[in-house]
Amino acid sequence: MQRIVTARLQGSMRFEATTRTGHVVMMDGGPDVGGEDAGARPYDLLLVGLAGCTGMDVISILRKKRQRVTGFWIDVDGQRSSEHPKVYTQIAVHYHVQGTGIDPAAVERAIQLSETTYCSAIASLRASATVSSAFTIHPDPEG
Amino acid sequence: MQRIVTARLQGSMRFEATTRTGHVVMMDGGPDVGGEDAGARPYDLLLVGLAGCTGMDVISILRKKRQRVTGFWIDVDGQRSSEHPKVYTQIAVHYHVQGTGIDPAAVERAIQLSETTYCSAIASLRASATVSSAFTIHPDPEG
Repeated sequence: MQRIVTARLQGSMRFEATTRTGHVVMMDGGPDVGGEDAGARPYDLLLVGLAGCTGMDVISILRKKRQRVTGFWIDVDGQRSSEHPKVYTQIAVHYHVQGTGIDPAAVERAIQLSETTYCSAIASLRASATVSSAFTIHPDPEG
Repeated sequence: MQRIVTARLQGSMRFEATTRTGHVVMMDGGPDVGGEDAGARPYDLLLVGLAGCTGMDVISILRKKRQRVTGFWIDVDGQRSSEHPKVYTQIAVHYHVQGTGIDPAAVERAIQLSETTYCSAIASLRASATVSSAFTIHPDPEG
């Protein structure tokens, strides 16, 4: 077992988390739960992590495939159950790849490799949620 | 479905994520994967979120139970599988409650309620990992 995070209460609902690599992440609730909105909502961070995890996979693979990517962003949508503990039941990941001469087959394959083999976050969350993906290729405005 | 996060590539491996509540979280890889360590590792954020999620539950319940908590922090350890996608297989949550006259039964019950009913992150990750918990009560040094 490895220590991954220590989170310390610093206010009504605000927690300062420090990760194993020394990075600090602030979390807080909204006024509806007595918080002051001074940080991200904790449960949102699972999808932040998912976005970064698959994003790093996909951009690495696209670079190996010599795709000229000039912009890359990922939108993640979630649907939660209505009953406690209100888990994500559906997660939709939309990859946006900007560049010149981007090969759709390369993008599709990169996403597939992340989803099925490399992305730890997708693998962890797929045990309790349906994870779907889509992608859009944007021509480089300067291309 | 609700948009939870948009993460945008800003460097070699650095992603800036903006959540639905407008909070920004930086993610990056280490030099081993071509990153510059300018943000948290994405997969660590799942346990950051877990810590904040259960932490907010537990402190709320302890306050309702009129416990005089003067300090509260949570350590989360993880064990990952050795093969891709290297998911967490074990997660250990250690709650530290500092205060005067803290009732162990109240702490135990608060943790149990979070684990079984309220904490979305524990519920999501328990589908693929064993989640265990423990707690320590620390006398208030000024109490």
